[in-house]
Amino acid sequence: MNQKSGKASIKLTQPVYILNSASVVGTKEGEGPLGLLFDKVGEDDLFGCATWEEAESKLQKEAVGLALDKEGLRPEDISFVFAGDLLGQSMATSFGISTYQIPLLGVYGACSTCGEALTLGVMSIAGGFADKCVCVTSSHFASAEKEFRFPLEYGNQRPLSATWTVTGSGAFVLGREAKGINGKARAAVTAMTVGKVVDYGLRDSMNMGACMAPAAADTLAQHFTDFAVTPEAYDRIITGDLGKVGQRVLVDLLRERGIDISKQHIDCGIEIFDGESQDTHAGGSGCGCSAVTLSAYVLKQLEEENWKKVLFMPTGALLSKTSFNEGRSVPGIAHAVVLESVG
Amino acid sequence: MNQKSGKASIKLTQPVYILNSASVVGTKEGEGPLGLLFDKVGEDDLFGCATWEEAESKLQKEAVGLALDKEGLRPEDISFVFAGDLLGQSMATSFGISTYQIPLLGVYGACSTCGEALTLGVMSIAGGFADKCVCVTSSHFASAEKEFRFPLEYGNQRPLSATWTVTGSGAFVLGREAKGINGKARAAVTAMTVGKVVDYGLRDSMNMGACMAPAAADTLAQHFTDFAVTPEAYDRIITGDLGKVGQRVLVDLLRERGIDISKQHIDCGIEIFDGESQDTHAGGSGCGCSAVTLSAYVLKQLEEENWKKVLFMPTGALLSKTSFNEGRSVPGIAHAVVLESVG
Repeated sequence: MNQKSGKASIKLTQPVYILNSASVVGTKEGEGPLGLLFDKVGEDDLFGCATWEEAESKLQKEAVGLALDKEGLRPEDISFVFAGDLLGQSMATSFGISTYQIPLLGVYGACSTCGEALTLGVMSIAGGFADKCVCVTSSHFASAEKEFRFPLEYGNQRPLSATWTVTGSGAFVLGREAKGINGKARAAVTAMTVGKVVDYGLRDSMNMGACMAPAAADTLAQHFTDFAVTPEAYDRIITGDLGKVGQRVLVDLLRERGIDISKQHIDCGIEIFDGESQDTHAGGSGCGCSAVTLSAYVLKQLEEENWKKVLFMPTGALLSKTSFNEGRSVPGIAHAVVLESVG
Repeated sequence: MNQKSGKASIKLTQPVYILNSASVVGTKEGEGPLGLLFDKVGEDDLFGCATWEEAESKLQKEAVGLALDKEGLRPEDISFVFAGDLLGQSMATSFGISTYQIPLLGVYGACSTCGEALTLGVMSIAGGFADKCVCVTSSHFASAEKEFRFPLEYGNQRPLSATWTVTGSGAFVLGREAKGINGKARAAVTAMTVGKVVDYGLRDSMNMGACMAPAAADTLAQHFTDFAVTPEAYDRIITGDLGKVGQRVLVDLLRERGIDISKQHIDCGIEIFDGESQDTHAGGSGCGCSAVTLSAYVLKQLEEENWKKVLFMPTGALLSKTSFNEGRSVPGIAHAVVLESVG
């Protein structure tokens, strides 16, 4: 055992590299603060499909296709694809990427799935089981509202603590060499911390930031312990989709443990929308939120060396329509990945 | 890269061991041909809970607890748990094993999830990322009917091609040493083949065996190619839940490719119920079917050296209520794991 670190973490003896990536988003995301950075913005949110679920599948398909194209790879160059989404039985994944005929390992961690897929993809390469793999996750505002909340036609009001599910998919090509087709890889993955289910008993599906913040705090505290580091080790600590409410809870929870991340913390859900002008309330959310923000914005900062080292931690609310209707709580989970600039 | 083999397979340089395991099942499974082999048979299928979903969570919790107890381990001895079920957003998993507070990597591969969880668990150990891990999957007849088909109260008729979702959970403790608490491990994992999504366009959710058989044939053919072996290399080739219809389709599909598995093939779904007397039609199915049959029956045969080497391949139908109602097909996937007697 040479790559285990602490209680829940992995310290790689050799980095694994994000060779390339792609982001495909919907119209609203295209109009947001990161709009110009995404590889592709759809003309409308059905992406030429008959249903929202098909549209989400197409997002995944296009993101994977684009990421492979950008790196000059064909599907047969990829050993495994690690993929997931938020829908029941990971429906967007089942139909989205089957055309590529790459061996598939489906993952589910709610909105933390991008962190989980990257963790497992990195393990498959660092363990010598794969040469190259692809990690992809997606979400779609309309398919998520249908899956978890109300029909769009119902036009329900949303409290200010609610987040807006991002329509988008981010795909990442991982490999063991630091050099990609562009001369250098987009970033190096050097360590990971795997989260556990944390349940504070919250039951409000319209305040998922608060539901997820305890899990985010738990994984971060575990990470700092496992690696004996402080928040200052990172230029940014980037959560997936806590939004404005969850961010406040996270900072407060960690302060109680004597950890101050207020200077380093940003949240993909807060970055991706302008809450005021876009009426997205607490921020963006979903499997696609952290994935497209990582691909379009975070990796760009690492490439340009504006940031040298960041902790990227998608956060998930383990919510289902059935468990919610049965009065169960909404537990959270968060998986952290250390990303470094390759210079 | 030292452990990749062929297009979709992994050949381990050192085996990973199933140190111990446990199976917890419902009443009907307890009355079936394997009834006496299961570790625990529930008194009724609610397992003391208020809902079917809670009951399924409890199955997972008990299976993991029992497997750890049998091996004399505590939850904190386990690096990661790889877990999944069939319900939307893997609900049984989110609530089932959170009490153990082990870092969780959620997986989804429909009824192939046991194969996927074992594959990833083995990778985490063989790659040096974990010392010990747990893999667990579950299904429950009543929660699955509610999730995928009709309310039980409706009393719908079932065609003879339909399978009966197994109420049960199987948990496996993996480690790197051949010796468990019982003197020797239950079996060695020496290789894996990861399946891809195979879609023949079938749309009948009451004939999942036929939907999954093409994926089973694909993974098996790939396995034989990747390792340059024939079915005779195995004492048994064990699919998860094809049932009687799917078994016929699988044998025929492989015969068309010049491969004859009729002498070696058995199916967990056929073994677990007596179709005639138990009114289960084509056989058992679900994430729990292959898991409990592996734990109670297959591993026992390997321990007693009745079989020396088997190919264990859970099969999954990538079905969701929404995709089915939208008229989509039911694609399949299957992941194969080579298990050997430790003598």
